Amino acid sequence: MPKEKEKEKLVEAITDREKDFAQWYTDVVKKADLADYSEVGGCVIFRPYGYAIWELMRQQMDERFKATGHENVYMPLLITESLLQKEKDHVAGFAPEVAWITHGGQEKLTEKLCIRPTSETLFCSHYANLIQSYRDLPKLYNQWCSVVRWEKTTRPFLRTREFLWQEGHTAHATAEEAQEETIRMLNIYAEFCENVLAIPVMKGQKTESEKFAGAMATYTIESLMHDGKALQSGTTHNFGDGFARAFGIQYTDKNNQLQYVHQTSWGFSTRMIGGLIMVHGDNSGLVLPPNAAPVQVIIIPVAAHKEGVLEAAKAMQERLSKIVRVKMDNSDRSPGWRFSEHEMKGVPLRLEIGPKDLEKNQAVLVRRDTGAKTIVSLDAMETAAPALLTEIQANLLAQARQRLHERTYTAADAEEMRKILDASPGFVKAMWCGREACEDQIKEQTGASSRCIPFEQERISDVCVCCGEKAEKMVYWARAY
Amino acid sequence: MPKEKEKEKLVEAITDREKDFAQWYTDVVKKADLADYSEVGGCVIFRPYGYAIWELMRQQMDERFKATGHENVYMPLLITESLLQKEKDHVAGFAPEVAWITHGGQEKLTEKLCIRPTSETLFCSHYANLIQSYRDLPKLYNQWCSVVRWEKTTRPFLRTREFLWQEGHTAHATAEEAQEETIRMLNIYAEFCENVLAIPVMKGQKTESEKFAGAMATYTIESLMHDGKALQSGTTHNFGDGFARAFGIQYTDKNNQLQYVHQTSWGFSTRMIGGLIMVHGDNSGLVLPPNAAPVQVIIIPVAAHKEGVLEAAKAMQERLSKIVRVKMDNSDRSPGWRFSEHEMKGVPLRLEIGPKDLEKNQAVLVRRDTGAKTIVSLDAMETAAPALLTEIQANLLAQARQRLHERTYTAADAEEMRKILDASPGFVKAMWCGREACEDQIKEQTGASSRCIPFEQERISDVCVCCGEKAEKMVYWARAY
Repeated sequence: MPKEKEKEKLVEAITDREKDFAQWYTDVVKKADLADYSEVGGCVIFRPYGYAIWELMRQQMDERFKATGHENVYMPLLITESLLQKEKDHVAGFAPEVAWITHGGQEKLTEKLCIRPTSETLFCSHYANLIQSYRDLPKLYNQWCSVVRWEKTTRPFLRTREFLWQEGHTAHATAEEAQEETIRMLNIYAEFCENVLAIPVMKGQKTESEKFAGAMATYTIESLMHDGKALQSGTTHNFGDGFARAFGIQYTDKNNQLQYVHQTSWGFSTRMIGGLIMVHGDNSGLVLPPNAAPVQVIIIPVAAHKEGVLEAAKAMQERLSKIVRVKMDNSDRSPGWRFSEHEMKGVPLRLEIGPKDLEKNQAVLVRRDTGAKTIVSLDAMETAAPALLTEIQANLLAQARQRLHERTYTAADAEEMRKILDASPGFVKAMWCGREACEDQIKEQTGASSRCIPFEQERISDVCVCCGEKAEKMVYWARAY
Repeated sequence: MPKEKEKEKLVEAITDREKDFAQWYTDVVKKADLADYSEVGGCVIFRPYGYAIWELMRQQMDERFKATGHENVYMPLLITESLLQKEKDHVAGFAPEVAWITHGGQEKLTEKLCIRPTSETLFCSHYANLIQSYRDLPKLYNQWCSVVRWEKTTRPFLRTREFLWQEGHTAHATAEEAQEETIRMLNIYAEFCENVLAIPVMKGQKTESEKFAGAMATYTIESLMHDGKALQSGTTHNFGDGFARAFGIQYTDKNNQLQYVHQTSWGFSTRMIGGLIMVHGDNSGLVLPPNAAPVQVIIIPVAAHKEGVLEAAKAMQERLSKIVRVKMDNSDRSPGWRFSEHEMKGVPLRLEIGPKDLEKNQAVLVRRDTGAKTIVSLDAMETAAPALLTEIQANLLAQARQRLHERTYTAADAEEMRKILDASPGFVKAMWCGREACEDQIKEQTGASSRCIPFEQERISDVCVCCGEKAEKMVYWARAY
C-alpha cells in the first residue's frame, strides 16, 4: 500500500525545535527534501529542492561579482603535494585535512595529489605565469566549485567533507587596493545575506588565532541561529604579499621596477543553506525568504474536479509565472496534505482556490511566515502576490534583526559570560587584551570562541574580560557551529 | 620593456591550419586565452574567456533540460570501491582509468574511494533509496560537475584528466519511456549543436564494441572537424533494467507488483569547446557563432582622443548592451593590434568608429566569418547589428553543413576506404556485417573506427565492406579524436 505509506510519512511530525534543535534541523533537511545521505561518509546528496536554493544563491551572488568586475574561471580539482607546500602557514593549516590521491588508474603516482581544500596555491601558480606588467593588474577571478576537507564530525550543509562554494582570488598592484577589495567583498557578502537570505550579520575582523591559514588578516560576517549559536557565514582574506613572495608573483610597475602583487581571497558556501534553515525555520519546517525560494507561490486547487477550478488555477499559474516563481500542486492528495508539504518546504506564499472562491472571483493567499490569510480578487493577483512577497522578505529580516538585537549581551567577566550563554545563548560583547591565552581560557570556561572584532567598536570597560589587564578591543563571543 | 614584449607576442602569427592542424589548435587555445596548462599533468585551467563560453553553453543547455522536466541535483565527488563494483560491465570499463584516494588527512581509509569518472553508481544507489512507488517515477535528474579519468595522452578540451560536463540520469517505469528519453535527449543535443554551436551532426547508434560500459544501447552525435576527423559530440545511453537489477531499484506498480525501473544517462562536455575551435576556426584564430560568443560585438574606437569619438563609442555600447553581448576595447594599443586580438578571440562582429565615421553619423561593421565590411548609420545600429549576427550564425552552420556534405563518401571495400581517408579525410559510409572482427580489421587497415549506425540507413551494397559477407547495416566510419 504505497499510498498509505506516503501519508503516514507526512503526518509524522518533525521534532520540536525547542526540545532538540539538532534533531529538528536534521528532520527539516530530510523532510523538506533538501539533502540525503550518501554512501561516502560525511558527503551529502543535494536533492533538487536543496540544489535549486543553491542555484538561486549562486546566480544572485554571481551577478554581484560580475557587476564589480570579477570574472569566472575554473582551476583543476587536484593539487600536487609540492604545490600545496609552497606557503608554509597555508600547508600547515590544510595538510591535516586533505584527501590524498596515490594512484591514477593502475599506476602509482610519482607525486601524491590532493583534492583542493581551497585553491590559493593553484591561483598563485597561475598568476605567477600570467602576471608580468602593471597592465595585467588587477586580476579579479572567482570560481564556483566543490572542495574537500576531511572533517571528523559532519552535519548536512554545516560541515561536510565535500561542499560547494565560490572562492574569489584577486591580485592587485598595491596593498591599499587589496585591502579595499577585502572589505568590498565582505560588504557584498553582508548585503547579500541581508537582502537575499534575510539574515542580518555582524561584520568584523578575526583574531590572530581564528584567521585563515596564510592570511595577513581575515574578515568575517557572523550570523545568529535560532538556538543562539553563531554561524560564520562568509570570510574574506587579505594576504598582503605573503603568497606572492612564496610563489614569485611579480610585476613590472610603471617605473620599470619589479614589485610583488598583493592578494585577497574570499569564500561563501552551501553552509548558508544550513543558515537559512536555522535562522528562519519553525516547527512546521523550512521558512524561505522569497528571494531565496525556488517556489515563491504554490497554487493549490481545492476540489479541482469541480467545474472551472483547475482551469482557473492554471490560468492563474500562467499569469503569475510572468512575475514570480510559481508552481501548482494538483496531486490527488488532500488539501491538508498538500498545505503541510509546502509549509515543510518553506514556500513563502500559498494560493488556495476552490469552487466557492471561484464564484466570488477570488482566491486565498496564506503567508508562510505568519500564517495570515488574505482574500484577494483574482483580478488583483499580479499586484497582491508580489506585494505580500516583499512584505514576507522584509518581515523575516526584521524578525531576525530583532532576535539578534535581543540576544546580544555584554559581559564584564568570563563567569558572567558563561551564565548568559547557559541561560539564553547569543552573542556576548566583551573586552579583550589581545592575547591568545585569554581566548583559549574563555573558550574552556564558557564554550564560546571569539567570533570577530567588530568594525564598530564600543568601550564596555577598560579591562580584559578574562585576565583583567588592559583591554585592547571589544570582541563578539559566541558558541558557534 | 613590457609593452614591447606584448606587441611582439601578437604579431607572431599562429601556425598555419593546413600545415599543422594539431599545433594550430594548441595555438588557438593559448592565444585566444581559452585555457592554460596547470601543474597537474593533463588538467587545464579554464581561463575567463574559455569559461565564459562554457557558461553560455551550460545556460542554454540547462534551459532545454528544464523545459523537458529535468531537475538539477549534486551528487558527491567520491565513490566507494564497493559501490563502483556493483555493475560488472561498468566497473570493467571505468576501473582502469580512475584516480584512487587512499588517505583522508593523516589516516589511511578503511575502503578506497575513487573520484567519479561518471556517476551512474551514485545515482543508482540514491534511486534505490528514493523510488518506492510508480508515483515516484519518472525521476529526471541532471548534474553539472567535473569528472576525472586518468587518460594517458591529453589535449586541452578534447581529452583531459579532469573535464566539466553535465550528466543526466533518469529512471522510468517502462522500457518504452526509457527509450523515448534516450532519443529525446539525443535530439536535444543535436538541436543544441546546430542552433547554438552551428555544428551539424550525424545521429545514430554506437556498435556493441563502442557502446558505454554497462549500457544496453548507446546513441551518439558525431561532428566533422576541419581536418576531416570526427568528434564524438554527445552520447545518450539506454541501460534497460541492468543497473536496476544490480542496485535493486524497484517500484510497486499500480497493480501492486514489484517492477524494476528502466534507466538512461546522457552526457555533454567541455570537449565541445574544442569542437567549436576545430569546426569554425581559421588562420586568424577562433571564429565563434554568435549564440556561443561571450562577446558578440566588439566596439573599437579609432583615434579615440579626437573630439566626440569616445563618447559616441560609449553611447553605442550603452545602446547595444540592451540587445547583444557587447564590449568596448579602448586600450592604448593600435587599432590594428586590437583588430587582430578580437579576431583571434573569434568575436563575430567588430564595430569600428572613428572621427570620419562620426562626421557622417556612421560606423563600420566587420564580420569575423567573411571579413565583409558594412557601413551602417548610427541610427540603424539596433537593427543592423543583430541582423548581421543572425546572418553569421546561419552562415557558419551552412558552411559546416556544406563541408560535412562534401566530405561524406561511400566505400565498397576497406582499401577504397583507406584511399579516401588518406586523400581527403571525412566520413565514409560503408556496409557492415555486424561482427566486431570486421570493425577491428577496418580500424587496423584504415585508422577509421565505426562512428555510428545512422538512423537514416541507405543500402549501398549487399555485402560487408570488410569480409564481403552479408551486410546488416550501413555505418559511418571515420578517423576520430
